[in-house]
Amino acid sequence: MNVNANIDQLYVVGVDFGTLSGRALVVRVSDGAEVGTAVHAYGHGVMESVLPASGAALPPDWALQDPDDYREVLRRAVPAAVAASGVDPARVVGIAIDFTACTVLPTRADGTPLCELPELRDRPHAYVKLWKHHAAQSHADRINALAHERGEPWIGRYGGKISSEWEYAKALQLLEEDPEVYALADRWIEAADWIVWELCGTETRNACTAGYKGIFQDGEHPSAEYLAALNPGFPSIVAKLDHPLSALGQRAGGLTARAAAWTGLPEGIAVAVANVDAHVTAAAAQALDPGKLVAIMGTSTCHVLNGDRLAEVPGMCGVVDGGISPGAWGYEAGQSGVGDIFGWYVDHAAPAGFASHELLTELAAAQPVGAHGLIALDWWSGNRSLLVNHELTGLIVGLTLATRPPDVYRALLESTAYGTRMIIEAFEAAGVPVTEVIVAGGLLTNDLLMQIYADVTGRPLRLIGSAQGPALGSAIHAAVAAGCYPEIGSASAAMGSLREEGYQPDPDRARAYDALYAEYRTLHDHLGRGGNDVMLRLRAIRNAALENSARPEGSPAPEGSDHRESATVPAGGAAAGGDEAVAVAA
Amino acid sequence: MNVNANIDQLYVVGVDFGTLSGRALVVRVSDGAEVGTAVHAYGHGVMESVLPASGAALPPDWALQDPDDYREVLRRAVPAAVAASGVDPARVVGIAIDFTACTVLPTRADGTPLCELPELRDRPHAYVKLWKHHAAQSHADRINALAHERGEPWIGRYGGKISSEWEYAKALQLLEEDPEVYALADRWIEAADWIVWELCGTETRNACTAGYKGIFQDGEHPSAEYLAALNPGFPSIVAKLDHPLSALGQRAGGLTARAAAWTGLPEGIAVAVANVDAHVTAAAAQALDPGKLVAIMGTSTCHVLNGDRLAEVPGMCGVVDGGISPGAWGYEAGQSGVGDIFGWYVDHAAPAGFASHELLTELAAAQPVGAHGLIALDWWSGNRSLLVNHELTGLIVGLTLATRPPDVYRALLESTAYGTRMIIEAFEAAGVPVTEVIVAGGLLTNDLLMQIYADVTGRPLRLIGSAQGPALGSAIHAAVAAGCYPEIGSASAAMGSLREEGYQPDPDRARAYDALYAEYRTLHDHLGRGGNDVMLRLRAIRNAALENSARPEGSPAPEGSDHRESATVPAGGAAAGGDEAVAVAA
Repeated sequence: MNVNANIDQLYVVGVDFGTLSGRALVVRVSDGAEVGTAVHAYGHGVMESVLPASGAALPPDWALQDPDDYREVLRRAVPAAVAASGVDPARVVGIAIDFTACTVLPTRADGTPLCELPELRDRPHAYVKLWKHHAAQSHADRINALAHERGEPWIGRYGGKISSEWEYAKALQLLEEDPEVYALADRWIEAADWIVWELCGTETRNACTAGYKGIFQDGEHPSAEYLAALNPGFPSIVAKLDHPLSALGQRAGGLTARAAAWTGLPEGIAVAVANVDAHVTAAAAQALDPGKLVAIMGTSTCHVLNGDRLAEVPGMCGVVDGGISPGAWGYEAGQSGVGDIFGWYVDHAAPAGFASHELLTELAAAQPVGAHGLIALDWWSGNRSLLVNHELTGLIVGLTLATRPPDVYRALLESTAYGTRMIIEAFEAAGVPVTEVIVAGGLLTNDLLMQIYADVTGRPLRLIGSAQGPALGSAIHAAVAAGCYPEIGSASAAMGSLREEGYQPDPDRARAYDALYAEYRTLHDHLGRGGNDVMLRLRAIRNAALENSARPEGSPAPEGSDHRESATVPAGGAAAGGDEAVAVAA
Repeated sequence: MNVNANIDQLYVVGVDFGTLSGRALVVRVSDGAEVGTAVHAYGHGVMESVLPASGAALPPDWALQDPDDYREVLRRAVPAAVAASGVDPARVVGIAIDFTACTVLPTRADGTPLCELPELRDRPHAYVKLWKHHAAQSHADRINALAHERGEPWIGRYGGKISSEWEYAKALQLLEEDPEVYALADRWIEAADWIVWELCGTETRNACTAGYKGIFQDGEHPSAEYLAALNPGFPSIVAKLDHPLSALGQRAGGLTARAAAWTGLPEGIAVAVANVDAHVTAAAAQALDPGKLVAIMGTSTCHVLNGDRLAEVPGMCGVVDGGISPGAWGYEAGQSGVGDIFGWYVDHAAPAGFASHELLTELAAAQPVGAHGLIALDWWSGNRSLLVNHELTGLIVGLTLATRPPDVYRALLESTAYGTRMIIEAFEAAGVPVTEVIVAGGLLTNDLLMQIYADVTGRPLRLIGSAQGPALGSAIHAAVAAGCYPEIGSASAAMGSLREEGYQPDPDRARAYDALYAEYRTLHDHLGRGGNDVMLRLRAIRNAALENSARPEGSPAPEGSDHRESATVPAGGAAAGGDEAVAVAA
């Protein structure tokens, strides 16, 4: 198939690798029409309490995956999506992927995951560490303290804090807890880049994850002196990461014969450079112009925003040159718990008769602003926004004997909206204008939630057109990599979309929320910035108590021992977990 | 019947007027044996949302009662208890009552309740204001501010704060919201003293309520200058209250023919001076010696403690000369929400499958201290301990996606134990020793709760012998009033009792709780002492939001619109609400 053929007849495939499953989407190059999709759930899901290969218990806060589950998405979801679309595979001219991040694994020099070496099959550190592996907090703390102590130039690019989720914190944990596996790891690579390597046979490193998750700034890794001060063995990490970077939208290589056999797609078609699920959504939401903030709202929320100049925004996840699209400074921010908090409430806290997102939403929607008398801090999964501390925890204040389930539910919805407003205000205070707010992700179908966000932020909301933003964004990148468009911007304009209808803030409700937001902000700063570190101390006490005792029945489950993402989306559904390869023709 | 007869053959009746019902108990004078009891639930219960006589809605935080419901307890529960006991009524030599407090009503000079005047039947302010009528907070705030401004000598006797529940705050609300009813009230009288008046035909005022609830100290009411500065019409309140005080245990008068007909008891037998439910329990728990603290734990907890000298304890409800027994300084402290918080959780917050005190207790008991990672502030009903502010609200911190119902339930149990420890420490810091802790009330049957209290306070717990402490205490007072014992102390020694078994603190758990208690204390002081008045502001916002809107379905119920006491006691059962006159032979 010639890419110079009429693009009406050409298609691309975007594959979105999520937390529990991977989705393939077949998209028409000319207009972004989504013509077929399929989902495949990872066979091993998220390994949080036990490593199946050995039966050994995993410590608290671990979250591993098996990389072959990702290949299985290529083998099953891609052909199923193409089949569902009815498109002749020969008309598919490119494939691109996006991934959760930082989801990272150790491999040999040829890309073989260490966990696939038989002798390492029972070693937890040989596996993929999923983004929400949160057991490297102490390592992140040291990374941050030393960076500030030495005045490392890059720390300001990450809002002053490197997350425990990222490449260096997870690598330092690996080095110190399993030095043998560390030594065997020739490469320490994002799963995003690894699966592209699997597709095209060539290692590439994308500018997005290298910048946001890998502390690669202004062409440099952290210095050997700095790394040695963390641990004398740690300077070796740079060699495991180093590789020329590829700009987003570039062609990484051609589809190998092996990957063509897996996917049923033509050998040699363009494989685009990898990307991150949130960042690639900006293309699908036609939000590449500076000032357009996209909030991808699901289990957690990620905010991405292009700016035309470099600024250091306190607490932001990062700013990366070309991190969202070449030629702009890409800003990323995030909220580590959103839909999963609502899901926790329905699955584990709501009384009988109230355990339904639909009913709680309906009852909560009838309340005037402030009538429940509650404020919550939305830190059930920690805070990865301004505070960047995964050990922070949730809080509810204002409880009385008259408090009822819709009150708590509404307060939880609102708390995440306050968290988003904190982020928007931090951008603007740092000189990065936010001119438009666009929502993507599974939560945009919750009407009450959207209206609360509009009212709390005092801004109109636009909504992405696609229900599969990341996969569509990947497809857009694939179209660019295949040469169908000269760059991501024009591909986004042709293939992305926004809905006509949106949400307008109500002036009275927005005023009422200003007062509540002020309370949120005061609590946020007091409990999140050292006024009272009770949350951190309680977590330390909890961890010590659980370690000192065999876990009897009734004692708290370690975080994540439940498969909580599987039922957490109020309406619509970003949560594809649990589905077997379901093919849906659009 | 001659009271000089062998006291083995004599009996007394104690009547305990609670929040939802009244209980009569027939007791043998010689040894306190409880030989028959009956409960009668108030026909009007607690009127919190609507005044039945007019159908008019009551504002938030109101709680009224109908005084004829109290007479009905005399007409029904007393004869039923005597019948159940099989005792010849002729052998009954005395009757005494105890009451919730401050529960107060306006009457004419002859004792007729204003709400029984046909022309005032539809006026909310003509009714009894129950202890938990919390709509006079703004009046209490003014009373306190002015007392501190003017350096009134009595304010220190109340820990620096007069409660919105007490006589002066409720009277000031009456004056300012319904001056006509205020003017018609010749007397402003505790329901305790009013029902004694109904029994013996003579008005008396007991030293306990006058001191704790009526700001009567060192033989004086607050000054006319002070009262006029609150409101020019307010000095007139003194004439509505003033009356010679009677010491506890005194004979108020003889049973009238009318009351003899109601109760079936002999005309002319001793009617004792009224008392308060908590304070009278000290006699039943053999806890009249200085240093013995009795915690009466039910829906709320009241702490009473005799001391041999006067001290001003910050935040205590009050210290009154002869307030518990003549010849000692009686100290009172309290926690406004305890069993009702646990009840709220089970009735309105626990998920399906967990809505059982028994199950939650069993699961929570299996946890090591601190394993849930939570701290709660036990202010669902405000704080009437060190902070004396009913507008404070509950808080939970430490919530994560792994938090489960037994975690929250245990944290709620613990929060009330921390509240008790704050009170004990405040006494000791002020120079009032606490040498022994004795628990009475319905919650003492919850094994886990008792062990947590022992571990959190680091002190052994003793338990009262009687399940009907207040009614037994009243019976002890009746025996003194009837002349069977020379004073309350010897009657208490003969008729009161403690169980052999108690609870010992576990050193390891006590140490672990020290760390958690430190966190509670920090949050307590920050949120309760002005560090962040978010709770007060949220309540003001809530009240404004509810007032500005008709209450649509799903919006929060005003506090108390549910009959929440009716099902709030984890095990055993102080909550007698809902029972029809049930007679039980002991």
